[in-house]
Amino acid sequence: MTLVVQKYGGSSLKNTERICAVADRVALAAKGRAVVVVVSAMGDSTDVLVALAQDVTPSPQEREIDMLLATGEQVSASLLAMALHDRGLGAVSLTGGQAGIRTTASFSTARIRDVQPDRIRHELDAGRIPIVTGFQGVESDTGWSDVTTLGRGGSDATAVALAAALGAPCEIYTDVAGIYSTDPRLVPEARKLDSITYEEMLELAQYGAQVMMPRSVELAQLWHVPLQVRSSYGVDEGTQIGGTMEHANRVAGIAHQRDVAKVTFVGLVDRPGVAQAIFDALSAHGAHADMIVQNIGHGGRTDLSFTVAQADLPRALAAAAGVRDAVDARDVTAKSGLAKVSVVGAGLLSSLEYASLTFGTLGDLGINIDMISTSGIRITCVIDGSRVEDAVRGLHAAFRLDGDVAWQTSA
Amino acid sequence: MTLVVQKYGGSSLKNTERICAVADRVALAAKGRAVVVVVSAMGDSTDVLVALAQDVTPSPQEREIDMLLATGEQVSASLLAMALHDRGLGAVSLTGGQAGIRTTASFSTARIRDVQPDRIRHELDAGRIPIVTGFQGVESDTGWSDVTTLGRGGSDATAVALAAALGAPCEIYTDVAGIYSTDPRLVPEARKLDSITYEEMLELAQYGAQVMMPRSVELAQLWHVPLQVRSSYGVDEGTQIGGTMEHANRVAGIAHQRDVAKVTFVGLVDRPGVAQAIFDALSAHGAHADMIVQNIGHGGRTDLSFTVAQADLPRALAAAAGVRDAVDARDVTAKSGLAKVSVVGAGLLSSLEYASLTFGTLGDLGINIDMISTSGIRITCVIDGSRVEDAVRGLHAAFRLDGDVAWQTSA
Repeated sequence: MTLVVQKYGGSSLKNTERICAVADRVALAAKGRAVVVVVSAMGDSTDVLVALAQDVTPSPQEREIDMLLATGEQVSASLLAMALHDRGLGAVSLTGGQAGIRTTASFSTARIRDVQPDRIRHELDAGRIPIVTGFQGVESDTGWSDVTTLGRGGSDATAVALAAALGAPCEIYTDVAGIYSTDPRLVPEARKLDSITYEEMLELAQYGAQVMMPRSVELAQLWHVPLQVRSSYGVDEGTQIGGTMEHANRVAGIAHQRDVAKVTFVGLVDRPGVAQAIFDALSAHGAHADMIVQNIGHGGRTDLSFTVAQADLPRALAAAAGVRDAVDARDVTAKSGLAKVSVVGAGLLSSLEYASLTFGTLGDLGINIDMISTSGIRITCVIDGSRVEDAVRGLHAAFRLDGDVAWQTSA
Repeated sequence: MTLVVQKYGGSSLKNTERICAVADRVALAAKGRAVVVVVSAMGDSTDVLVALAQDVTPSPQEREIDMLLATGEQVSASLLAMALHDRGLGAVSLTGGQAGIRTTASFSTARIRDVQPDRIRHELDAGRIPIVTGFQGVESDTGWSDVTTLGRGGSDATAVALAAALGAPCEIYTDVAGIYSTDPRLVPEARKLDSITYEEMLELAQYGAQVMMPRSVELAQLWHVPLQVRSSYGVDEGTQIGGTMEHANRVAGIAHQRDVAKVTFVGLVDRPGVAQAIFDALSAHGAHADMIVQNIGHGGRTDLSFTVAQADLPRALAAAAGVRDAVDARDVTAKSGLAKVSVVGAGLLSSLEYASLTFGTLGDLGINIDMISTSGIRITCVIDGSRVEDAVRGLHAAFRLDGDVAWQTSA
């Protein structure tokens, strides 16, 4: 019998009524296939647990946070197992540890080391549906198997890792119908994509699409796990994520991120080791730089710019102040209230027409481009935050993403 | 360093403020001694979880109920560990499984098979305070170590079992100051007892005192664990439970139980096997008989009476109807709205003066005695439920339990 891993997010399990609806859906899927289910915690229950911890101490220990938060998925898993029993199906809830999810011992941000799915296989062989708590595992470093959690996007990571270990495809159920050509809240004409490559999904996720975390997409790509993102409400097929570059020369979607700030080291001495000194200082201050641009230098001096999340700007500036003399920069400037808008598609840079249409569209709208960065399948422009909606709508229309056939180059 | 096991009940952990207060108390105890803490779930959180399950299905599977309910103690244990960290103490929350509590696989009513305290010893050796989730363990029958819960009074059982395994005394923290000579809600003059024997505590618990379940008292007696019951609010010493029969000839307390019903088989054929047939039928109907009285027979016939909880009466009568012909009873009668009142003390029946004062006191109050049953350290009378307060007050006064020196026989 074919096997599928289905993952249901917190919004799909926000109350007992929704848990029963998910049970109906799993029961239907279990008619033709063997099913392994991965669940998140119910609705906002993780926030409630975090608030309890904050009530006790402003700086809870991460090991204890993991023990606390792991209960959230245990509640939803056991309730879903009960609901399936009530529908006459054998089901058995399993903690991350019972499901064989073994991780590093870095509490709250653990990484999956390996999956030992003996118990899951045992339950599948007995005809039961394993309901696995997402977002958690047990560490395999100390010998004590302490409970760990996987950090943001952890439940998706659990589902993809299990699918990889079991050689099964993975369905991610969420409260949206799939991956869209851009944010439907900004552009009502946004189109749901039938399919998208891992690389495109990664770029969309990294540059602002919120449906999936880059981490799980990378994991799926690495282990060749076919992914499907779909709604837990309707019967629509959602978006298939997989393959690799099979759709050359087309734009998949427009992503955007707000609350971006830019820091520039002006007139930096242009010698090896300078960039490393800057990014080591940033890292030590806990500021994460994500778009780094350096132009060619003049007279032994150059300018280096990078973006950080608006919230990280104070930390980034503190880091810059500490390292400025060491790198002999003439000045450090900062600009906040920016946004990123990204055009993502397979083989974009194989034709300069994409870049040309991107920059031309923004220019026609009178939107100034502050920084540009590209990958093989992405063009990102940093612009003024107040113009982000205009930019997204303009680019979405220019690349004809609202129609059945997207804009294509002659290539 | 001496070691103590402290158990805190749900009422002592009902919110984060109370959890912090318990952390202060544990921190104080940890100054002079090594401490292992056992916690119940916060306040009424177990009831909230049960309500969620009932929302999903009227008949939740017991294995899944255990997965669900076990989260309650995991929340309070991790929060208490955080609060201790916040006070500069090393603490580590442990699930029942991590604490080595191995049980039978009878979910929801599991019995502790053994305790393997390797992890607890490891944490104690490292100078940390283990915070163990009460009420739960993992079964050692299937090889999969599934989560089990221990049923009513389970957290006390966890604490006593750990104390036995570690060779330590056990302190039970609750919302009352200790064991009283009778229910202080009925008799304001009720006196907190400084000490009481296991046997007396068992009789009090079995005949109505609610502070401790008989199960944990039996466990403590079996493994010679010194028990102390005390309040988590004040600094009072509470009541020491231990030793055995060291205080002969004194009354420890008056217990009572309401909502009792009596069933009588009238004119039963007096031959071997008849009582067994009746109690087998009761057991098959899930009715628990707890006071059984049979008088000597006349002409090959006898009467057999027993009490059941009022709520069990329909089941008991159904059982009686099924077995009546087989045991050739002339009639089956029932009486409800009764109560039990019990005088408990070491060596009571070594002097008939206790029985005499008990019956005399009830007689003076015009209270009719429906049934009598005794053990070596207990005299129980079944009376009309409407007179239970008068009976408790009268006996408490007659045995002078409100003074410093209780009534004693000349023996």
